[in-house]
Amino acid sequence: MKRIAILGSTGSIGCSTLKIVESYSDRFAVTTLAAGSNVELAFEQALRWHPKLLSVVHEDAAERLRRRLREAGASETEVVWGTAGTVAVATHPEVDFVVSAIVGVAGLEATYAAVKAGKEIGLANKECLVAAGELITSEARRQGKPLLPIDSEHNAVHQCLRGGRAEEVERIWLTASGGPFLHTPREEFACISVAQALNHPTWKMGRRITIDSATMMNKGFEVIEAVRLFNTSPSRVRVIVHPQSSVHSMVEFVDGSILAQVSVTDMQLPILYALTWPERIESKLRFDMLSLKHLDFCPPDLDKFPCLRLAYEAVEAGGTKTVALNAADEVAVAAFLDGEIPFSGIPATIQAVLNETPACKPESIYEVLTMDSEAREVARRFVNASASGSRIAAIR
Amino acid sequence: MKRIAILGSTGSIGCSTLKIVESYSDRFAVTTLAAGSNVELAFEQALRWHPKLLSVVHEDAAERLRRRLREAGASETEVVWGTAGTVAVATHPEVDFVVSAIVGVAGLEATYAAVKAGKEIGLANKECLVAAGELITSEARRQGKPLLPIDSEHNAVHQCLRGGRAEEVERIWLTASGGPFLHTPREEFACISVAQALNHPTWKMGRRITIDSATMMNKGFEVIEAVRLFNTSPSRVRVIVHPQSSVHSMVEFVDGSILAQVSVTDMQLPILYALTWPERIESKLRFDMLSLKHLDFCPPDLDKFPCLRLAYEAVEAGGTKTVALNAADEVAVAAFLDGEIPFSGIPATIQAVLNETPACKPESIYEVLTMDSEAREVARRFVNASASGSRIAAIR
Repeated sequence: MKRIAILGSTGSIGCSTLKIVESYSDRFAVTTLAAGSNVELAFEQALRWHPKLLSVVHEDAAERLRRRLREAGASETEVVWGTAGTVAVATHPEVDFVVSAIVGVAGLEATYAAVKAGKEIGLANKECLVAAGELITSEARRQGKPLLPIDSEHNAVHQCLRGGRAEEVERIWLTASGGPFLHTPREEFACISVAQALNHPTWKMGRRITIDSATMMNKGFEVIEAVRLFNTSPSRVRVIVHPQSSVHSMVEFVDGSILAQVSVTDMQLPILYALTWPERIESKLRFDMLSLKHLDFCPPDLDKFPCLRLAYEAVEAGGTKTVALNAADEVAVAAFLDGEIPFSGIPATIQAVLNETPACKPESIYEVLTMDSEAREVARRFVNASASGSRIAAIR
Repeated sequence: MKRIAILGSTGSIGCSTLKIVESYSDRFAVTTLAAGSNVELAFEQALRWHPKLLSVVHEDAAERLRRRLREAGASETEVVWGTAGTVAVATHPEVDFVVSAIVGVAGLEATYAAVKAGKEIGLANKECLVAAGELITSEARRQGKPLLPIDSEHNAVHQCLRGGRAEEVERIWLTASGGPFLHTPREEFACISVAQALNHPTWKMGRRITIDSATMMNKGFEVIEAVRLFNTSPSRVRVIVHPQSSVHSMVEFVDGSILAQVSVTDMQLPILYALTWPERIESKLRFDMLSLKHLDFCPPDLDKFPCLRLAYEAVEAGGTKTVALNAADEVAVAAFLDGEIPFSGIPATIQAVLNETPACKPESIYEVLTMDSEAREVARRFVNASASGSRIAAIR
């Protein structure tokens, strides 16, 4: 029985993980949960799964949950809150495996603590590798414990890498759906609306990651994650556009053989893979091969999607630059969703923040978090300036 | 230094193997060669590679070669001939690795002898698995030595299988180019000419294998090979048409993940893989990923390509049926190439021979060879009857 902690249990990955636990209750048990802001769902999850520990974001929510759970007779669950609560969930002594799926830097401290506590990690939190990749991967190596990727691309790469030794890998090919604007002419990018950008062709995801897909920044983050997770150089990680998202990624070996992973677009599959690795177990997540018609591929257009280029520049420089990249993107995407900046303002904001960020190497999670705050401030200033600038432009 | 014997050195696979040895002369050495009927090329190969032993098909050719090599000062090469010669080449004590690439049953005895002698085998001879698969694979298992497939599909499967354990494999997907008649309407199959059938869209190969591709019997043989080589059941081996031949085959695992192998269409790659396994070494055989546009797939049409159905029926019945399948096909293809029977006469001949073959299990290579001869005789009789029948039809 593998005892699981889920960081981000009320999010999309968290809910998919719980579906897996439900389907394979003979193999997996929920030991602890860290919920997001959906406290109602957290309450239901506590009633259903009886975790030893449940963490929520705010103290008052924790207080109310405690009372409701007591009234419902579910007093076996201890309710905690905040970063300390998430860390307690991640490092609980009875936990074997931590699914790290809290979006944003909020998951960083808890995931790092779980790695230090020697837990096996299923990694769906992008920031862990983008902002703090060197710290987290080196600690996992020191612990001798695996970091198993739970996003479809890196999970696919992990599978394909089994076809050879690490030193036999020539290149990693991350596939990209190309997002909703693959065929949109470059000159129309300035007028892209929020509704258009939220309309992703193949995956249903949260708002930020959907916009990150539309700008292809998401793919840029994945390049950085691949560099850190698979301990390789940026030049060995390439992106290829594949609109159907059936091939989730590929690995090219030195002999010229390429292995590609194909499957349905359902996050349950990479979660199941991470939870059962090095085994594979039977699932109903079947790809219908005989209905397969066409798979299309083309190189990405870095002029239309400058975010991808910025990500390469950031990971080449390393350290603080990738912290700034992520922080600036989060601020810029929020500003775009709030109507403060146009779609093309997202890469402009990130470029401005990267320019103002000195390149150095963070030595601790604390330093990463400090740099992250600083970069957010720079990004906010730039957004405010552009927003007032565009208001002025609009008035004229 | 891996010391290599090549059975079929003057054929296409043999020449590609020698190119590999040439490119990696620090890793591989040619120790013995068994040539086909191209004695001139055998002479050149002996001068170039100085094998300890060279075998040719006929005694008189061996006599002439001996004299010519002596005159050329290349007396270090001993020249032998016939089946005994090929067996000596395959079992030479200084040989580590045998590339089995003699087309037809001629390669059977020598390959079986090599397996019994504990050699590592790179297998490109179809008959070894189609006609004598159970004998050869069980002997290889007893020896604890690998049988490494050197055709692109099974080599691809071998690579993809590294992504999981044997018991985690749900299905093997062999890709098929579909041959030159993929889009030809069924009613035109009777009028297909020899020239049309020899015009394969993606691979340049020998005449028989090209016709076998046009009827899709080649894919049927590959299904049988996969069943024997990977020790699985026919229902777990499926065929999918993929005209570009970029994906060489796939493996579907029980969790729903599929691994696919992609590479250039150059036999040097599977040969290199087999020779270096479990390592991979650097090659110039690069697939140009950024020029990749479309990959198309569709299910095979068993009504248009009855040979594929016949292969499934033969392997389900096992033993003698697959011996008869191969023998009947060889006779039928030769008759088609000689203008004796129409294209549609190929499956008709095979069906007739299968009907007349009792299902039993050969216990030795000798029994396989006897059954093979008998099936050829039945096939010849059927071809002669159809040929005279069609002449009569033409006179009327």
